[in-house]
Amino acid sequence: LRTKLPQVGTTIFSVMSALAAQYEAINLSQGFPNFPCDAYLLELLNKYARSGQNQYAHTFGVPALRQAIAQMVATQYAAIYNPDTEITITSGATEALYAAITAIVRPTDEVIVLEPCYDSYVPAIELNGGKPVFVALQAPDFRPDWAQIRAAITPKTRAIILNTPHNPTGYVWTPSDMDTLAALVADTDIIIISDEVYEFMSFDERPHLSVSRYEALRERAFIVSSFGKTFHTTGWKVGYCLAPEAFSAEFRKIHQYLTFSTHTPTQYAIAEYMQEPTRYTQLASFYQQKRDKFVGLLQGSAFGIIPTQGTYFQLLNYEKISQESDTVLAEKFVKEIGVAAIPVSVFYHNKQQDKVLRFCFAKDDETLEKAAERLRQLP
Amino acid sequence: LRTKLPQVGTTIFSVMSALAAQYEAINLSQGFPNFPCDAYLLELLNKYARSGQNQYAHTFGVPALRQAIAQMVATQYAAIYNPDTEITITSGATEALYAAITAIVRPTDEVIVLEPCYDSYVPAIELNGGKPVFVALQAPDFRPDWAQIRAAITPKTRAIILNTPHNPTGYVWTPSDMDTLAALVADTDIIIISDEVYEFMSFDERPHLSVSRYEALRERAFIVSSFGKTFHTTGWKVGYCLAPEAFSAEFRKIHQYLTFSTHTPTQYAIAEYMQEPTRYTQLASFYQQKRDKFVGLLQGSAFGIIPTQGTYFQLLNYEKISQESDTVLAEKFVKEIGVAAIPVSVFYHNKQQDKVLRFCFAKDDETLEKAAERLRQLP
Ligand SMILES: CSCCC(=O)C(=O)O
Ligand SMILES: CSCCC(=O)C(=O)O
Repeated sequence: LRTKLPQVGTTIFSVMSALAAQYEAINLSQGFPNFPCDAYLLELLNKYARSGQNQYAHTFGVPALRQAIAQMVATQYAAIYNPDTEITITSGATEALYAAITAIVRPTDEVIVLEPCYDSYVPAIELNGGKPVFVALQAPDFRPDWAQIRAAITPKTRAIILNTPHNPTGYVWTPSDMDTLAALVADTDIIIISDEVYEFMSFDERPHLSVSRYEALRERAFIVSSFGKTFHTTGWKVGYCLAPEAFSAEFRKIHQYLTFSTHTPTQYAIAEYMQEPTRYTQLASFYQQKRDKFVGLLQGSAFGIIPTQGTYFQLLNYEKISQESDTVLAEKFVKEIGVAAIPVSVFYHNKQQDKVLRFCFAKDDETLEKAAERLRQLP
Repeated sequence: LRTKLPQVGTTIFSVMSALAAQYEAINLSQGFPNFPCDAYLLELLNKYARSGQNQYAHTFGVPALRQAIAQMVATQYAAIYNPDTEITITSGATEALYAAITAIVRPTDEVIVLEPCYDSYVPAIELNGGKPVFVALQAPDFRPDWAQIRAAITPKTRAIILNTPHNPTGYVWTPSDMDTLAALVADTDIIIISDEVYEFMSFDERPHLSVSRYEALRERAFIVSSFGKTFHTTGWKVGYCLAPEAFSAEFRKIHQYLTFSTHTPTQYAIAEYMQEPTRYTQLASFYQQKRDKFVGLLQGSAFGIIPTQGTYFQLLNYEKISQESDTVLAEKFVKEIGVAAIPVSVFYHNKQQDKVLRFCFAKDDETLEKAAERLRQLP
């Protein structure tokens, strides 16, 4: 069978998690917590399943959940989205990204992608016949390089994909980044796709700058997020898309043929759980403590550390330890020191070597201590 | 925003269910049961959620579920599929269909579609740049018209999509249909996509002829099914795809970027629930009784009835009652007699009028009685 995705194998997340399991390594690769979600959320899931909410949800999502999201977005970002026409529930953020890209990208359209980036963007663009145009973020903190982004825009530019807080680097967009983007697209038809799945994990008093806060951007944006990271339930696969009515209408046409609808009792459970906002607003301080703990444990090690600004990932620079490529080193780490991490080069189309590995610190303290102990022994 | 799907609005299922709710009509339109699933299945869901199975499942699906499917397929269809390489779990059959079509359809490829057909096939083909080639099934029982199918094949034919038991008509493919198809594609590269979501609802001692039973077909087939219909949990959205290794490899590349993975505790629950085969093998007699009840209640009414051979849908011919189009009549039925059904013309690209409406009989007896009482009063 002739492949449509010659560059693609099994995603790095599945590969590294399998390798970690095989070698019984501490798995800091794929992004998910190793501690349980709130028992009350499980009670709610059981309650709605028991009450008989097990048939097709509405294809746009359960109204109670769309309503809860509208309220959350209004409170957090002072942004008004109509749950009937502008909010759609999806089977995870991955589906939402695929649907948004499919709704707008046509053959020969260009889409600007800031690298390193999450691995689903480029295949989704290519499967729709589009052409990714790559612009590298700037080390050491991986901020957008605005001169290069400006230079990458052509008459064929259909969209720019942004991601803040940024996976895998942890960079959080600033007001100046947002203003610059708004100015850049002002006289164009360029569409924004904003991946904000780490929206509640921005640290050190930095507010998360959702695109929904910026009128000039949101009117041309698909904003994608999900609850997996926020509620420690990455396996529940409930995501959402915010977009102006005309955008949402096209998005929904695609969504209804991608998955039609999403796990019904889970949608009800999350809708009720969201009624208490501290359940998501306290997430940043929770993960900031984890970051501080992990980074603290690595002080004095051979790794170069720039504390992450958001997400639950920490990059570690290994130049003082090894000159090998990050993929070779990541495999060695699993086999020889028993810690699995993600080599960041897989998030670049040209496998650029920044000499960093990505570690997920969404783990209980004991796990972080054990992992740090192993990492500190290097070189 | 310029649309990619000018023909498409909100799916008929969402439209009719909303209309039914608005007018408090008995909803026999969208296909889902109005009775609960087995309480034990809910217990299993709760058990696995409580035990902490709430993070990302493997992108190919939880191994226990792939294993359970392999065993079911071996027992039911005497077909061996390797769960590691040939079985993939998806977020419902809709996702599996979209992934299979995306894996193989390229711009200008032709895909033969037998009408009336489920409404997701054609948009999926078109979004991938393919061209649906329509062949109508033959009234009154909607069997395949083999002369026309043969005539529709060209050097550009990439695939044929079949669906047995067939939604919306209830036709079940025969050994002769399968043999004819096998002969037709024997010296070609044509791929088969087989939608078998009603696999456990074939009536009157007719065996379900899964494509997996036919070596000459299965080696070139994506076979798609799901558990929503089988276990009365249409809102749980767990489906699967069986395909030879090379096909599955391409399918999985697409799937991992469409949804990545599917609701984890639900996969575990279904895997355990499947250990007792009567939980699916008894479904046919259960629904055959429902069909017989519904059809019995309508004997002597003005509707023309050919008892359905499979699925939980019954077509009723209304020529003696009205000369209106089925969409007009379906709306009238909701508003004036309080019964919602699906107009079958929506499943034809040219809105062909067979003068039939589709009624879902996956309802408790009281609901079927009430609906039949209303329908019997016509004209
Ligand atoms: C969908 S698996 C990947 C999880 C994740 O977001 C990450 O590890 O980057
Ligand atoms: C995905 S909603 C439609 C359910 C169904 O299979 C049908 O009613 O035909």
